Amino acid sequence: MTTFLKATEIPIRGARTLPGSWYTSPAVYERELERIFVERWLCACRAAEIANPGDFVVRCVGPESVIVTRDESGSVRAFYNVCRHRGSRICEEARGHFEEGIQCPYHAWTYALDGRLIGAPHMRGLEGFDPADYPLHAVAVAEWEGFVFINLSRAPEPFAQAFAPLIGRFARFGMPELVLAERITYDVRANWKLVHENYSECYHCSPVHPALVRLTPSNSGENDLYEGPFLGGYMVIAKPGGSLTMSGRPCGLPVGELPADDRQRVYYYSIFPNMLLSLHPDYVMVHTLWPDGPGRTHITCDWLFHPGTLSDPAYDPHDGVAFWDMTNRQDWHVCELSQLGVASRAYTPGPYAPRESLAAAFDAQVKAALGEGA
Amino acid sequence: MTTFLKATEIPIRGARTLPGSWYTSPAVYERELERIFVERWLCACRAAEIANPGDFVVRCVGPESVIVTRDESGSVRAFYNVCRHRGSRICEEARGHFEEGIQCPYHAWTYALDGRLIGAPHMRGLEGFDPADYPLHAVAVAEWEGFVFINLSRAPEPFAQAFAPLIGRFARFGMPELVLAERITYDVRANWKLVHENYSECYHCSPVHPALVRLTPSNSGENDLYEGPFLGGYMVIAKPGGSLTMSGRPCGLPVGELPADDRQRVYYYSIFPNMLLSLHPDYVMVHTLWPDGPGRTHITCDWLFHPGTLSDPAYDPHDGVAFWDMTNRQDWHVCELSQLGVASRAYTPGPYAPRESLAAAFDAQVKAALGEGA
Amino acid sequence: MTTFLKATEIPIRGARTLPGSWYTSPAVYERELERIFVERWLCACRAAEIANPGDFVVRCVGPESVIVTRDESGSVRAFYNVCRHRGSRICEEARGHFEEGIQCPYHAWTYALDGRLIGAPHMRGLEGFDPADYPLHAVAVAEWEGFVFINLSRAPEPFAQAFAPLIGRFARFGMPELVLAERITYDVRANWKLVHENYSECYHCSPVHPALVRLTPSNSGENDLYEGPFLGGYMVIAKPGGSLTMSGRPCGLPVGELPADDRQRVYYYSIFPNMLLSLHPDYVMVHTLWPDGPGRTHITCDWLFHPGTLSDPAYDPHDGVAFWDMTNRQDWHVCELSQLGVASRAYTPGPYAPRESLAAAFDAQVKAALGEGA
Repeated sequence: MTTFLKATEIPIRGARTLPGSWYTSPAVYERELERIFVERWLCACRAAEIANPGDFVVRCVGPESVIVTRDESGSVRAFYNVCRHRGSRICEEARGHFEEGIQCPYHAWTYALDGRLIGAPHMRGLEGFDPADYPLHAVAVAEWEGFVFINLSRAPEPFAQAFAPLIGRFARFGMPELVLAERITYDVRANWKLVHENYSECYHCSPVHPALVRLTPSNSGENDLYEGPFLGGYMVIAKPGGSLTMSGRPCGLPVGELPADDRQRVYYYSIFPNMLLSLHPDYVMVHTLWPDGPGRTHITCDWLFHPGTLSDPAYDPHDGVAFWDMTNRQDWHVCELSQLGVASRAYTPGPYAPRESLAAAFDAQVKAALGEGA
Repeated sequence: MTTFLKATEIPIRGARTLPGSWYTSPAVYERELERIFVERWLCACRAAEIANPGDFVVRCVGPESVIVTRDESGSVRAFYNVCRHRGSRICEEARGHFEEGIQCPYHAWTYALDGRLIGAPHMRGLEGFDPADYPLHAVAVAEWEGFVFINLSRAPEPFAQAFAPLIGRFARFGMPELVLAERITYDVRANWKLVHENYSECYHCSPVHPALVRLTPSNSGENDLYEGPFLGGYMVIAKPGGSLTMSGRPCGLPVGELPADDRQRVYYYSIFPNMLLSLHPDYVMVHTLWPDGPGRTHITCDWLFHPGTLSDPAYDPHDGVAFWDMTNRQDWHVCELSQLGVASRAYTPGPYAPRESLAAAFDAQVKAALGEGA
Repeated sequence: MTTFLKATEIPIRGARTLPGSWYTSPAVYERELERIFVERWLCACRAAEIANPGDFVVRCVGPESVIVTRDESGSVRAFYNVCRHRGSRICEEARGHFEEGIQCPYHAWTYALDGRLIGAPHMRGLEGFDPADYPLHAVAVAEWEGFVFINLSRAPEPFAQAFAPLIGRFARFGMPELVLAERITYDVRANWKLVHENYSECYHCSPVHPALVRLTPSNSGENDLYEGPFLGGYMVIAKPGGSLTMSGRPCGLPVGELPADDRQRVYYYSIFPNMLLSLHPDYVMVHTLWPDGPGRTHITCDWLFHPGTLSDPAYDPHDGVAFWDMTNRQDWHVCELSQLGVASRAYTPGPYAPRESLAAAFDAQVKAALGEGA
């Protein structure tokens, strides 16, 4: 049985913010890449983005470029975007379709959609060369709720084990059936952890998001996940039948099969380490975070709707998109101010407020992932 | 009694220029931040820029951002621009006015103008939290001749002791009463020390400043401060009643109460580590230097005039401003050429000329400040 | 007697591409600057570019700036572009003419075209100062086939010894008499070695250069230099009397005194470490490579023609220039893709194809130059 707790009911035990170097040091960032972004499951895209065999997207994990595609058998596959011959990057486009295998533009080495090397011109007769030794370097994949996850570890934790607390948890939202209405990408001059910490508390909502707090009072919610890699809960939509939009009215058909309570709530979950999942009655917003150095994070934000919404003149998805685009930018702005401030010699870890218990829980997760040596 | 010496009369004892790494190495730069820009008094602004309680300016010292303001009692105050809660930068503007205390935009923690934490929403009931423990981190301040100085040291040398040789020295120029006519900021791709060394000698004046040497012959002057942190003296204005302007004529009412000798002189002082003070009969020019990495210096240049000048149609302050803006740019250009050259593996410290004795004295001051380990 | 071998006849002995760090690590790059770009002879310019005493060009070798000029006696000279006084960079222009010696713009120290310090204002009477102690730091020079080479080593290997295999080898092309028709410079985001490796094989020609392989079949050639610092050979122009141009027809008068065989060939030589020499029947193309960090190379490409070509309406040099400008850009593009890919943690050295034997030989030369510790 789920226990819901107000943020202020979750013990913070004198927690303080992280040391400044954790947000600014290249060495800490390298450690995070190794221990977190290589070892953990990352949300890469929606399965619908690679609906057909040969469809692909490319995602950048720090300095790494990863191809996510679908093979001839319909299985999702992921590979490092690196040719086994001379190391050339293979795909230059962020998304597209492989017509005839995955071909390196440099010397035309060609790989099947399952990664096998199937063409290497003029290599015949080279002693000791066996094409079977040179498949694309594979990246582990998994699917959950219509999303594709990747894992760069050499020995990935099984997805079902890693995501056990979330399996089935959001089934009522019917996410696999939703369709993308809009995507906006952001280039944020802040450490990826500041984005999570920001997402994990609504203590900042009154000063930063005046429009948001009119729609969902900042202390209205409760949380059902408050330790470990997945953190979050819900906030209450003040106006019956309202939603988080510029107009305050719903901007889409109801998603999934939601009980009455959920129709008055927005659920927010920070899914370690790169996904933020925001479930509204009439749409789902998904942020994925892509660190690019200690002080920079690329963020992709998708807005997903009931498939009937896009053709229904009664609804305007942009009403919700515009609301969150405004709210996102308010958040990125204070994250960027924090990035500047924590770089100061005067900065010392400060006391988390009772309303910031989930930010403290996020930090605890980071500490556990990096180990004591960080 | 003051002894005036020609630059060539000041012994240089075989002094050579500094090693190349002192201008290019990030490690030396870090040491300079620690030992010089944190430990010494820096000219931040004029007191008149923060005339009323709540007025503020923000200054950047390397990676640090410092708020300089005036509290309700009329005292000047300075603080690190870092919130004690989550470390956010508080002020984003370079100058402005605090209407109701100093409020962090992130979670609305609010500080009085004297730095005390006076508002921290929803912190009540957090065990062990006492607002008195979380004032803004203070930065020491002092005033001299209408200028505000700051010191980031945890144990600053008393200003009156540090600046003893200068106290009262320029009283006849009446600087506190002068008013700002123009400010120009420059972004110079050169180490801050190259700017001081350039300022400290007129050996370069003939090749670099043909207009300047027509007005003040390059070897005309004498110096009364030639060792320690404050260095300089005067040069003679060739034409009786002239000044350093595009036209060669005065561009303002006489400043202060100057004896006849001073009406025919320009005094130049390098005030370690970030101020260059140039006292003309009809205006005062003040450079402040703000290092931003080993190879870059932001420079603010102010031109101060007798308050009656700005409304007196007989004078055009821009006549002096334009002259020095041209001359400044000539100086920055050769400083930038030096920055490029001293980075070469072929560069070795070269022999200072007899006319560069004050540049050698400046270097000696840097060496003393950094210690032998630099 | 010269032995010509097909690329596939040159043993590669299981050679693999270099480790990724060799293309990305600042430490390896520094070692390359020290051991290769400082120690080896670099092609700087053509002697014709500094035809008269006082003519000069400036070339950048990593962080170093070098002046190449001609003295009053007609000898080529090269110097570090660093004043012996305060270290200022002296020449700001990439090329020009010294009217009255080499004068530093900062304090007007002046050097003769042979590097002697001949003017140092106001230094008289400085104890221990002898102008003879302060010539410009010299850089060794040599000339070969109309090209000027420089060597920054303190003890350069004699040019005639270093270039013994090339002395007289290309005399039949009459390069000293050729004239420059066009120069294009490129800023390539790839390590300099990737540019050499790319130049050293035509395995990539089919996928990357469809127009080129129509004119010269990709496996048509043979090589006469296949180990050591100089590598290359020829490819066959398919169409009798054709050339490598957009039209396929010659774009200039025949160069030099070429035997019939050479009129149907293009010779390509990689001349370690910074020159690529491409000898066509009707023009000579010369690339010089100037590394600027591990991931960036500035490339100058010159097209040289028989002096009669430029005034002969029967020929359009741009027909060849445009062909190679297109082909160059195709090459830089795949070099840039390689730079991205070899930075991946998934990259491991891959197997060279038999057709890439000269790229493997280039790598062997790099390894020998850097030593085992790299």
